[in-house]
Amino acid sequence: MINHIGILTSGGDAPGMNAALYGVVKTAQHYNIKVSGIKKGYEGLISNDLISLDIQTLQSSMHLGGTILRTARCDVFKTEQGRACAINTINKNKIDALIIIGGDGSFKGALWLAQKSNIQLIGIPGTIDNDLAGTDFTLGFDTAVNTSMQCIDKIRDTAESHNRVFVIEVMGRDSGYIAAYSGLTSGADSILIPESRNDIESLLNNLDDFHSDHALIVVVAEGDEVGTQEVCEKIKSVNPNIDLRLTKLGHLQRGGNPTASDRMLAIGLGSFSVHALLENKTGMMVGIINNRYCLTKFAGVIKKHEISEEVNKLLAIFCR
Amino acid sequence: MINHIGILTSGGDAPGMNAALYGVVKTAQHYNIKVSGIKKGYEGLISNDLISLDIQTLQSSMHLGGTILRTARCDVFKTEQGRACAINTINKNKIDALIIIGGDGSFKGALWLAQKSNIQLIGIPGTIDNDLAGTDFTLGFDTAVNTSMQCIDKIRDTAESHNRVFVIEVMGRDSGYIAAYSGLTSGADSILIPESRNDIESLLNNLDDFHSDHALIVVVAEGDEVGTQEVCEKIKSVNPNIDLRLTKLGHLQRGGNPTASDRMLAIGLGSFSVHALLENKTGMMVGIINNRYCLTKFAGVIKKHEISEEVNKLLAIFCR
Amino acid sequence: MINHIGILTSGGDAPGMNAALYGVVKTAQHYNIKVSGIKKGYEGLISNDLISLDIQTLQSSMHLGGTILRTARCDVFKTEQGRACAINTINKNKIDALIIIGGDGSFKGALWLAQKSNIQLIGIPGTIDNDLAGTDFTLGFDTAVNTSMQCIDKIRDTAESHNRVFVIEVMGRDSGYIAAYSGLTSGADSILIPESRNDIESLLNNLDDFHSDHALIVVVAEGDEVGTQEVCEKIKSVNPNIDLRLTKLGHLQRGGNPTASDRMLAIGLGSFSVHALLENKTGMMVGIINNRYCLTKFAGVIKKHEISEEVNKLLAIFCR
Amino acid sequence: MINHIGILTSGGDAPGMNAALYGVVKTAQHYNIKVSGIKKGYEGLISNDLISLDIQTLQSSMHLGGTILRTARCDVFKTEQGRACAINTINKNKIDALIIIGGDGSFKGALWLAQKSNIQLIGIPGTIDNDLAGTDFTLGFDTAVNTSMQCIDKIRDTAESHNRVFVIEVMGRDSGYIAAYSGLTSGADSILIPESRNDIESLLNNLDDFHSDHALIVVVAEGDEVGTQEVCEKIKSVNPNIDLRLTKLGHLQRGGNPTASDRMLAIGLGSFSVHALLENKTGMMVGIINNRYCLTKFAGVIKKHEISEEVNKLLAIFCR
Repeated sequence: MINHIGILTSGGDAPGMNAALYGVVKTAQHYNIKVSGIKKGYEGLISNDLISLDIQTLQSSMHLGGTILRTARCDVFKTEQGRACAINTINKNKIDALIIIGGDGSFKGALWLAQKSNIQLIGIPGTIDNDLAGTDFTLGFDTAVNTSMQCIDKIRDTAESHNRVFVIEVMGRDSGYIAAYSGLTSGADSILIPESRNDIESLLNNLDDFHSDHALIVVVAEGDEVGTQEVCEKIKSVNPNIDLRLTKLGHLQRGGNPTASDRMLAIGLGSFSVHALLENKTGMMVGIINNRYCLTKFAGVIKKHEISEEVNKLLAIFCR
Repeated sequence: MINHIGILTSGGDAPGMNAALYGVVKTAQHYNIKVSGIKKGYEGLISNDLISLDIQTLQSSMHLGGTILRTARCDVFKTEQGRACAINTINKNKIDALIIIGGDGSFKGALWLAQKSNIQLIGIPGTIDNDLAGTDFTLGFDTAVNTSMQCIDKIRDTAESHNRVFVIEVMGRDSGYIAAYSGLTSGADSILIPESRNDIESLLNNLDDFHSDHALIVVVAEGDEVGTQEVCEKIKSVNPNIDLRLTKLGHLQRGGNPTASDRMLAIGLGSFSVHALLENKTGMMVGIINNRYCLTKFAGVIKKHEISEEVNKLLAIFCR
Repeated sequence: MINHIGILTSGGDAPGMNAALYGVVKTAQHYNIKVSGIKKGYEGLISNDLISLDIQTLQSSMHLGGTILRTARCDVFKTEQGRACAINTINKNKIDALIIIGGDGSFKGALWLAQKSNIQLIGIPGTIDNDLAGTDFTLGFDTAVNTSMQCIDKIRDTAESHNRVFVIEVMGRDSGYIAAYSGLTSGADSILIPESRNDIESLLNNLDDFHSDHALIVVVAEGDEVGTQEVCEKIKSVNPNIDLRLTKLGHLQRGGNPTASDRMLAIGLGSFSVHALLENKTGMMVGIINNRYCLTKFAGVIKKHEISEEVNKLLAIFCR
Repeated sequence: MINHIGILTSGGDAPGMNAALYGVVKTAQHYNIKVSGIKKGYEGLISNDLISLDIQTLQSSMHLGGTILRTARCDVFKTEQGRACAINTINKNKIDALIIIGGDGSFKGALWLAQKSNIQLIGIPGTIDNDLAGTDFTLGFDTAVNTSMQCIDKIRDTAESHNRVFVIEVMGRDSGYIAAYSGLTSGADSILIPESRNDIESLLNNLDDFHSDHALIVVVAEGDEVGTQEVCEKIKSVNPNIDLRLTKLGHLQRGGNPTASDRMLAIGLGSFSVHALLENKTGMMVGIINNRYCLTKFAGVIKKHEISEEVNKLLAIFCR
């Protein structure tokens, strides 16, 4: 039986993490389960830095970006001493279950906890990159896409005023999801992502007969093998007269109030996490596949390296 | 073979209609098919009011709300004379296929066209209410939800400053989808929708011991059997000291730049429409079910009268 | 000498109040002055409900709408007993000065405090209505105007899609400032405000030859003598075929993150308040006139009943 | 007498240019004056590329960023041949007056036109940098500040989640106005601008005892003598353990829908321009000083190299 859930956010922050806290706490309250927030990811588990989470605070902050619990990458958690402290915190506070909001690394890092204690573990996928198997969408992705798209909309205003070419770098270290979605939805002419090849050739071919009579938007994923600087150089080499600008959107893509879609996903997954714990699930990540909540063992939560087929078809027609 | 597609927007406008035009035209261009825009829904078909749609205009306007083609409800289209003019426009302009962006009424109204001409017909579901069978989501719904949610976020600022109770009416004449999504995602305490019963009793019970020590947000769908005025009266009858305010969000929910999700849906469905025409489909609406594009005969495109099971479960825990 | 400032927000909340707290605390910190926040306006002064305000909390919340101190209208403050408690709080906590963020009523209500204690009093004008003498702009006005304008922008999307006439009510119980600014900046065709007459006749004359070939936007201040319902009826009586819709924006205009302009005003006035206290000013409201901070005695802080001449000239050309 | 005004946008685009067109055309219409839009700045004057501007198109686009007239920097305008063509366009179209929306260079470039024709010239200050003498604010500045501020708000979400230090570059090649305003209004800890010195030393001193227990935001103007890369290196040299990130906001600051303040300024200056022409003014820029419209001879429209005194005082307290 579960009386006390601990919850933490780990790794990179993502919009929707606060809404997920709300989803967990509201559902736990429904079953008379206490929830404690653990500050700064695994650091707080080691240092016994817990706060109580009440529903009104979460109703007031579920719409905010970032994470009110703070987050961190924690190396001490890998040491013997760190682990002993973590187990101590769990025992002292009689925590029966731990919900971890973060990425694949954050989930797997917790697995040994289950060996040294009776704790149940559930993960919630929180990363703007949408690069995890076991879920169609991760928390923060829809917000990051909307943020990037709105930035590109703004850049289009000035690009069209001058008929300029813009190369715009969006986030996605190993994944082209943000680039594909933000580029398609902002009417980009070309999108370069790590999952596909030859996009740059196709772009350069199109530029051969570009006469600066309209704007042209090129969206590049951070992790694409051809970096934005190189993209700019190649464009200039094809057509030196092109009026070209480069913008890297950077960390603003990680922040901002979560969208409705991310909040729905957050409270849905948060609520489903508690139900999963009540059904004695452990060592699993919750996710959403084809609009239904589902569970995947932590071992199966690996990085996705493919864009979905439907999106690939759109890229072939719209951006090449 | 299809050489010329006509496209029109009909019925109420919805954010994402311009993005759907972009989706259709970009895909048609890929297959060397000409696309003409028909102004003001069926009115333009009757009066032969056509414009050519070029890709750069659509890249510049796909991010805007409303419809650059304008829309209208057209009674003349039901008359003999009106129909003769419509057929004339189709023949004169050698239009092989018609794509209709609108609701169920707009699709069925066109069916007789297929009897009097060789034209192929494809519908794209465009309505903020998300109340159509044959698709999980309609164009404009995600934007309307985000708009409503952001308005409720703003109202929360002032509600919490005063610990007030707010009753907020959102759109949805027969459907509680906008209310359910915007209420859940804004942390509402109570949501009243036409698809469920007894919500009002549950709300009034909760108010019995409400001590004005926090804000309380009640979201009501326009089409709920208990109107917002009555909701306010019932609240006052339970607890006359409650500091209560009523806001009806109204038509601002129909406008605004479409979200990324609506734009993705729009270009996806727009593109899929052209592919459906190329595969000789006709008399069908395109839709998305479990993340895959699909087709439903116009006869099957009826109003949905149920909230999805997943959302219902959330409502039971979060808002009652 | 001032060692301890108390600060409270009173009356209706307005975006920018949190930024004003930041402005006060940051400046006070510069002079090694302690600042305590008083919760719920004068209620907290009576009940001794004080919190310490640290700079990092304020850096994290200065961008949010509402007021983290909460606000209230407080009748007990007018009673002998209430006043005794308030004086007690001031003495017990050794509060040397009180900064009141609110409207004219909130300032004057505090004047007797100065008679019963040595406390210095400074007011900061916080109201979205911009209806106070002694300052060109009040805290929250620019945000409310931007919010209303953006709502009207959204309504324009759907109005133009259908060539409809919209009557839109914005806030301003006695003042047409929000209506004038939000109407002018959203390209409204007509603006009805309490400060001027005959606007409705001018509107009705224009509608005589209105052929529904474009949208038409009418913005009405809440406090205009012709209410929105009556405006709609008059329009219908001139031209019954007009496709007319009414939207009342309501309380969403009070919330939302403050704009840059409101935040600048807030930190400017907050900072100037502390400097005024250091110069032994008391019983005065800070304000901004012609871009310079200034002081007005509480007695002179009366309601403005005129729109500025520059704005009136624009109204005469753009909206009649 | 003036029967025909030509209007163009020149140099860098700025949000509010479309609203200024609306302001000019609506006022001109009031006096039965025709207005023609000249495409792509002086290029369109040379190539006789004129369009008529009707009020409904402008009501529909006044809220959009960029410029519907397009803009360009035009070298041909400095040649004999180019100038002959420009004069030819003026004569052929019987243009009595030219309104130029742009920066100081765009105004002065037109002065010779007055020597070779009877044309009257009025300039409207359109640049996001707010770096022109003769006006307190330029078109686009308030929007650029709000855009930058909102981006910094988003970055704060992630900065606070990790207690990171962020260096954020905002626009302003020779001017620190955008940096000062967006930094102050987003609660930045430090702001580096070209107009002041020693800011970097003050920042580095503060970092000596920085223990990564909160976020820290440094805003740097593009034109500051210490570039952002160097700022990062200096920070790292003081404290190598600091978790530091750099973001350059870039061109997204030039786009987006204009704020209410920029639209008010735009229609105010647009309207005042027409009135100035009617009073036979020429060779002058309109501006706003202490809330009143005013005129400055083109020769006096030089770059501002100082932040206003009021803002400097705030910087001294809030960001050093």
